[in-house]
Amino acid sequence: MTPIYDRVALIGLGLIAGSMAIAMREQGLAREIVGHARSAETRRVALEIGLVDRVFETAAEAVAGADLIVLAVPVGAMAAVAEEIAPHLKPGATVTDVGSVKQAVVSAVAPHIPEGVHFIPGHPLAGTEHSGPRSGFATLFRNRWWLFAPLPGADEAAIRRLEGLVEAMGAKTERMDAAHHDLVLAVTSHTPHLIAYTMVGVADHLKRVTESEVVQYSAAGFRDFTRIAASDPTMWRDVFLQNKDAVLDILGRFTEELFVLQRAIRMGDGDHLFDYFTRTRAIRRGIIEAGQDTSAPDFGRSQTAAEQKAEG
Amino acid sequence: MTPIYDRVALIGLGLIAGSMAIAMREQGLAREIVGHARSAETRRVALEIGLVDRVFETAAEAVAGADLIVLAVPVGAMAAVAEEIAPHLKPGATVTDVGSVKQAVVSAVAPHIPEGVHFIPGHPLAGTEHSGPRSGFATLFRNRWWLFAPLPGADEAAIRRLEGLVEAMGAKTERMDAAHHDLVLAVTSHTPHLIAYTMVGVADHLKRVTESEVVQYSAAGFRDFTRIAASDPTMWRDVFLQNKDAVLDILGRFTEELFVLQRAIRMGDGDHLFDYFTRTRAIRRGIIEAGQDTSAPDFGRSQTAAEQKAEG
Repeated sequence: MTPIYDRVALIGLGLIAGSMAIAMREQGLAREIVGHARSAETRRVALEIGLVDRVFETAAEAVAGADLIVLAVPVGAMAAVAEEIAPHLKPGATVTDVGSVKQAVVSAVAPHIPEGVHFIPGHPLAGTEHSGPRSGFATLFRNRWWLFAPLPGADEAAIRRLEGLVEAMGAKTERMDAAHHDLVLAVTSHTPHLIAYTMVGVADHLKRVTESEVVQYSAAGFRDFTRIAASDPTMWRDVFLQNKDAVLDILGRFTEELFVLQRAIRMGDGDHLFDYFTRTRAIRRGIIEAGQDTSAPDFGRSQTAAEQKAEG
Repeated sequence: MTPIYDRVALIGLGLIAGSMAIAMREQGLAREIVGHARSAETRRVALEIGLVDRVFETAAEAVAGADLIVLAVPVGAMAAVAEEIAPHLKPGATVTDVGSVKQAVVSAVAPHIPEGVHFIPGHPLAGTEHSGPRSGFATLFRNRWWLFAPLPGADEAAIRRLEGLVEAMGAKTERMDAAHHDLVLAVTSHTPHLIAYTMVGVADHLKRVTESEVVQYSAAGFRDFTRIAASDPTMWRDVFLQNKDAVLDILGRFTEELFVLQRAIRMGDGDHLFDYFTRTRAIRRGIIEAGQDTSAPDFGRSQTAAEQKAEG
């Protein structure tokens, strides 16, 4: 395939950037891939395993002459990076990010982007519980959504070119405004993660039930929570701090809803519980029909993973 | 294998009983398998697909002359079934159940069990979101826990014989008292299920986010919740009504914990969030080490299922 970008600069060399590098190289989507990571060890590994052609000690050096700059650092670090690289961006270059929240990234990055440089905020709905330069793999984005939140008046050709890149890596693309993105993700990802973290914490503190029991019998539903709750603490801290309003909104709705069910249990209102549990089945069917839960092999799960669904 | 029981009577012919029938038949663990289901259609199907050798219109007829009686009906139906079959139980027979709560089953069933019949409450930690006589399969219990809550003074030989049966079906056995069982399951299964149901309900009611968006972008954590929330409403209604005290106890701890995290988000206390999320990783590691989450293929999930762990 003819390269879509001449030089791509990856700022941050973790799971997402590393997977992009491998996928771009396999497909020949970039003529040259350079990178920067704060840690010298990460830079050393990235070079050693051939993730990038060259690494730089500073983000400023890495972006010089690049046609595409990918900000793949925690959301909380975006502002400082944007400020550092701004003076070194090549006219006509495109800057994108892979942050899990978009409004905060727009406010942190956009003010620093010079005239003539295209800033196209993005968010690939992909990841694993692993991190670091060795955690990437080429198929991470295959059949996954890559959401873009272009600013009003953004250059259509620049957007199409970037969408073409991620589609060539196997991703499906969609556009939505930053505020809506943050609300959708608060519902589908951020709040579920917080709840999973909470439930795992409860089990951890409960002394009448030994940890070995929690672990041993976790197949019965709890395991899914621990899987969700195993992901990167820094990334998630930033997600909740940076998408505060939407998460607090959804959390409020969640606790209201939970209290209604809790009351039904206390009052022994079986009909209410039955009706509620019946409604939730429909969404599950919708997800299967939407192809979000398919039959390809899944790494790290046993056949019994599907069984816990109905376990008591 | 020489049969462990001569005649086994299955009361209720759904996923668990059906899987037991197939596994027992494959291994030759019972000389004859008979059954009863309330629905004529279920009885017809069970006979047609060879799940049982004979079906009976009443539980009373089904248990006559049986050496092992398995109560595989919703927990809420146990008392009525126990009362019906009691006069027809053969002296020396063993009665067990597969209910998800144990204290309620003991109070519902034990008073009806006549002198000379062994009642050994049990709970296989296995299931799928499917139900009905066609949903069973022989490997459902393989490498899964089957918990038993024998009453004080229960006959050791009868317990060992029943444990031998489920172990021959591939299950691992453990004994604990009914109250402790109910607390452990409230933590590892019941409360996580209620929370999952709640989160799915929240998404369902949120009109600013379309259902198609919830479905489309559900891979980012929410999907696990819908999978949990897809299971049988009748079974779960009974679980929450019958394990009320333990579930309300754990729910109370959960909301306390959640409010602390919610406050940290509102106050922007990143250190608190980071420390909390770091602690939850340890339990996840423990589960992997305990072999509760292994690498065998998992039906119905895509490779991306593992990815949502760290998605934002």
